[in-house]
Amino acid sequence: MIIVLKPKTTKAQINHIVKKIAGFKLRAQVSKGKERTIIAVIGDERVLSTVPVEAFPGVEKVMTVLKPYKLASKDFRKETSVINLGLGVKIGGNNIAMIAGPCSVESREQLLATAKAVKAAGANVLRGGAFKPRTSPYAFQGMAEEGLKILAEAREMYKMPVVTEVLDTRHVELVNKYADCFQIGARNMQNFELLKEVGKMNKPVLLKRGLMSTVKEWLMSAEYILANGNMNVILCERGIRTFETETRNTLDLSAIPLVKTLSHLPVVSDPSHGTGKKPLIYPMALASVAAGADGVLIEVHPKPETALSDGDQSLLPVEYKKLVDDARKVAKAIGRTL
Amino acid sequence: MIIVLKPKTTKAQINHIVKKIAGFKLRAQVSKGKERTIIAVIGDERVLSTVPVEAFPGVEKVMTVLKPYKLASKDFRKETSVINLGLGVKIGGNNIAMIAGPCSVESREQLLATAKAVKAAGANVLRGGAFKPRTSPYAFQGMAEEGLKILAEAREMYKMPVVTEVLDTRHVELVNKYADCFQIGARNMQNFELLKEVGKMNKPVLLKRGLMSTVKEWLMSAEYILANGNMNVILCERGIRTFETETRNTLDLSAIPLVKTLSHLPVVSDPSHGTGKKPLIYPMALASVAAGADGVLIEVHPKPETALSDGDQSLLPVEYKKLVDDARKVAKAIGRTL
Amino acid sequence: MIIVLKPKTTKAQINHIVKKIAGFKLRAQVSKGKERTIIAVIGDERVLSTVPVEAFPGVEKVMTVLKPYKLASKDFRKETSVINLGLGVKIGGNNIAMIAGPCSVESREQLLATAKAVKAAGANVLRGGAFKPRTSPYAFQGMAEEGLKILAEAREMYKMPVVTEVLDTRHVELVNKYADCFQIGARNMQNFELLKEVGKMNKPVLLKRGLMSTVKEWLMSAEYILANGNMNVILCERGIRTFETETRNTLDLSAIPLVKTLSHLPVVSDPSHGTGKKPLIYPMALASVAAGADGVLIEVHPKPETALSDGDQSLLPVEYKKLVDDARKVAKAIGRTL
Amino acid sequence: MIIVLKPKTTKAQINHIVKKIAGFKLRAQVSKGKERTIIAVIGDERVLSTVPVEAFPGVEKVMTVLKPYKLASKDFRKETSVINLGLGVKIGGNNIAMIAGPCSVESREQLLATAKAVKAAGANVLRGGAFKPRTSPYAFQGMAEEGLKILAEAREMYKMPVVTEVLDTRHVELVNKYADCFQIGARNMQNFELLKEVGKMNKPVLLKRGLMSTVKEWLMSAEYILANGNMNVILCERGIRTFETETRNTLDLSAIPLVKTLSHLPVVSDPSHGTGKKPLIYPMALASVAAGADGVLIEVHPKPETALSDGDQSLLPVEYKKLVDDARKVAKAIGRTL
Repeated sequence: MIIVLKPKTTKAQINHIVKKIAGFKLRAQVSKGKERTIIAVIGDERVLSTVPVEAFPGVEKVMTVLKPYKLASKDFRKETSVINLGLGVKIGGNNIAMIAGPCSVESREQLLATAKAVKAAGANVLRGGAFKPRTSPYAFQGMAEEGLKILAEAREMYKMPVVTEVLDTRHVELVNKYADCFQIGARNMQNFELLKEVGKMNKPVLLKRGLMSTVKEWLMSAEYILANGNMNVILCERGIRTFETETRNTLDLSAIPLVKTLSHLPVVSDPSHGTGKKPLIYPMALASVAAGADGVLIEVHPKPETALSDGDQSLLPVEYKKLVDDARKVAKAIGRTL
Repeated sequence: MIIVLKPKTTKAQINHIVKKIAGFKLRAQVSKGKERTIIAVIGDERVLSTVPVEAFPGVEKVMTVLKPYKLASKDFRKETSVINLGLGVKIGGNNIAMIAGPCSVESREQLLATAKAVKAAGANVLRGGAFKPRTSPYAFQGMAEEGLKILAEAREMYKMPVVTEVLDTRHVELVNKYADCFQIGARNMQNFELLKEVGKMNKPVLLKRGLMSTVKEWLMSAEYILANGNMNVILCERGIRTFETETRNTLDLSAIPLVKTLSHLPVVSDPSHGTGKKPLIYPMALASVAAGADGVLIEVHPKPETALSDGDQSLLPVEYKKLVDDARKVAKAIGRTL
Repeated sequence: MIIVLKPKTTKAQINHIVKKIAGFKLRAQVSKGKERTIIAVIGDERVLSTVPVEAFPGVEKVMTVLKPYKLASKDFRKETSVINLGLGVKIGGNNIAMIAGPCSVESREQLLATAKAVKAAGANVLRGGAFKPRTSPYAFQGMAEEGLKILAEAREMYKMPVVTEVLDTRHVELVNKYADCFQIGARNMQNFELLKEVGKMNKPVLLKRGLMSTVKEWLMSAEYILANGNMNVILCERGIRTFETETRNTLDLSAIPLVKTLSHLPVVSDPSHGTGKKPLIYPMALASVAAGADGVLIEVHPKPETALSDGDQSLLPVEYKKLVDDARKVAKAIGRTL
Repeated sequence: MIIVLKPKTTKAQINHIVKKIAGFKLRAQVSKGKERTIIAVIGDERVLSTVPVEAFPGVEKVMTVLKPYKLASKDFRKETSVINLGLGVKIGGNNIAMIAGPCSVESREQLLATAKAVKAAGANVLRGGAFKPRTSPYAFQGMAEEGLKILAEAREMYKMPVVTEVLDTRHVELVNKYADCFQIGARNMQNFELLKEVGKMNKPVLLKRGLMSTVKEWLMSAEYILANGNMNVILCERGIRTFETETRNTLDLSAIPLVKTLSHLPVVSDPSHGTGKKPLIYPMALASVAAGADGVLIEVHPKPETALSDGDQSLLPVEYKKLVDDARKVAKAIGRTL
């Protein structure tokens, strides 16, 4: 940590700060420049993360040297972690996972038909929401446990692991009974109580990036899960909120290679939510693969026009098939399989 | 709702859309322009809010005419709602509420000392967190029920109603036992399960704007609480996230008069979190009053340097006293009391 | 400047960096921590502003200690600079300037009528655009020199100094002939050639903040003008671009007190462009005064419905009169005049 | 255009609006709903673009149906325009252009060495700045005409067309003498006087997206050039400003396929400025190709450590060679050449 002092800090103020820092078993090294005096703190500055150093008299600003996350960091583990979803699917290795399904589970017929179609098209993980976080209290809120049962049935029938969202600490046990992987949605990325609960489980967690979360905050949320004992975290870039309104969100593909320089956790991309526009999903799925994503999550619905949520951005199975075929070519071009 | 069609939409596609709309007991009026054909939907378009109209073949874009919220809307109630917090404090009338206290309850001594000081300075509502949403899993997470008990004791001692944050659906009953007003924090503004739970309670809810939330989404989150039966919602602007990094957030004061044109709910301002910088709190508190805020929420700590959270932005009681005195002058200048 | 090194930097790399820094007559002080080695650069780090230190082998990140601007900084001058616009109007002192007029000069009649009305309502500076930066090439582009002549006539008639925008380096001389103060618009805040040209003039410059410019960049643009010899710069906050779409821009009022902690330059507020919504202008004008603005810039048009630009956000003279009267009360409440 | 009226609009107000619209030779069709009355304007609403319809008494909001640009629109031309840069290079066809060179021309030696190296690596267009828009007045501002001469020499020597930035209307003639393609930088995307001047030239213009600009505004800026007679516009996505600070900008790759649905203009990508981080350039270049970019612009410098601008993000020639080789494989995977 570097503490920059205000122009006219007194000797007494400097001594006070140095003493405070020593109290945390850290060493303070004072350097007087012509315009500003700085104090370099030597040692693990993370012990100061809960100390309001900027509130100390005489302090102008504080700059941190170390990253605030540890278990999520590349310093902790050099190679990308490989997360096992079961049924032969691993995320984080050379193979790129294809995760597909409807936004919501709407009926047994709809889900089984979609599962069959995406499997045939080349998907190896099934997604579908049973609990839905909807902006409007008047919108469809999901089929709850009944939806989970349908997902579990589809898994058995088509041998694909199932990813589904958990919204509430009170549902963690229930979702755990049926799913192979928890999804934490963008709006819950900083629902810390929920992160703690899935951190106490053994199952993989797909952690979506909040739509106004920095990469650092995203990794801190992963740290919550890791610090509670669950090392099976998969990150998912799904678009951030910007001033641009022609797309629903701005899919920040650069976050994928960026995360790979900072963390060992695998990262997948969600171009469906990331763009919210059908014609952009195919090119952005291919771009995700080229950017290094470990998986691609796509919404597919046999009849988008009747979907109870996000129908506007769902691909038809035949469109999804073309996407998988062409994404496979791009994967091959960069030396990966899909 | 206005449906704009793509340039070469067929007659069959138009008929299909018109029929679909009729199925919802709405009337579709087709207007053919030179470049585009549009369909105006006559009736309460909100019934289409769950229908993926953009996924219908031939549709280019969809524009809504009505606001998606009803109970939160000014159409529902013309005058500002006055919310009763008890102990004589009402928010939404001519008097401006002064809400103050530490970020976190850290000890009985700290809280009681702060309560006494802010009361003396002119505050009429006490705030303090017992459950803290912290970005880092390694940071102080709050005193939980013990903190709630201390808050309740301070209320009795200083006759100020107490506002405190609830983070998790599992804690709603507990917080309800001790507090006079629930606070829903910015990171939980779209934790819809939590909104439903506080919606089932009778107590006022202070709903902070999410740092990534539009005013429309904020009012939709209020709608969740109102639609569940609890009409006692107070909105709180606390800064949004922008590209500017010199301030912690960008306090969007224009949201205060804007909300007043859209909704009957009272709205308060939080310049402490909204700026995150001590020298900006005083001017932005005065500006909040001038902009029409129904209350001002300020963090005060007797010893900011030892605070366990947000010490950097806490005012000393003496600084808070000056803020209240000067805010009162501005209130008077615009014909209000404080 | 603090240089943070990558985990496995070699001794040779460190020596290379230290030597490089010494080459700029600065001293490098190496501190080895457990996780990272840092190099503190002692001396005026601004000489390194053009050196790509992050490209040096072994460097992880670079953090600057000093502010990149000098002449605009509060270190350069402690008190707020008072800028003289002529005709008795000074900006930056205890008195708050009221700048008003139409968005564009549309005709002699329109401008003279508006000038008369705003003068009567309490304005002391006249604004109006003769060169208009319009998003669409098909929109009204301004009356050019003819408009400037009308502005000059209004000045003589009503004894108010005139502020008008200059868009192009080729027009600087021309505008200089007629105006009392150049306006640099938000879209030209980083038109550095234009900044240099007005920097060579003697007249005051009203420098609007770019709609996606940080406060630091804004002060760097002011530095361009100051460094070219013109010390008469007035900053103008006019709203930044955020994700919120209910307002045209987000008026960042916190920038006003923030700038006052960083710079000696006076700063005015433009709630008309800052909100783009008529009902928000009055409350945000009052809030601007309470936040410490040295002036308030308002668009007034006698017939907003026929305005050739920005009519949607123009106040009627009678509305402006009420705004001035009430802003005066707020000014008095905080000890200033208007 | 759809005009939504306020709840209690009077008959007289409606008639007034209808009459006004008729005055522009447009037809107004009034539809009374239960909650709101709307007026649909039939005809080319663009004639209303300069009319402040929202300022008409009784109007709540205005929604446009047609796109504000015409010549830039896909309605104007269905296929992607192919822009000829000379020396056999065309942008917009099946072949993807590789544009490379240093940020600034610093010396004859540096530029010729870089040109030779990027040509050998597979680039077919040379870039380099002679006029530099720098945030700081104290930073290197470019070699001006001397730099242009060096660029022209490199073109002759290595047979690559040259792209270089023009900053000021006064330099358009000069740059025109030496360059094959004007570059309009991000900070000048809404320097409308400059757009008009390059619009009067015959040479291709590479128009960078402003870091604060929506796709709609970007296309409106292209419209300025097209409307002045120059149809040779190439768009360039170079990253937008968001809240994320780990990358210098957020490269909005989804803008590439989005523009292709809206416009016939070719679009290239600039991952060097778009990310500002060396390790992200290679993956984002590949992703750009996969997303459908018609060209990729990369900064290359033989000695990044000594570069006078943007050295931090420059690739070495050997790194660029690998990028070209692998981008070619991705191009092939999607059926294009490079």
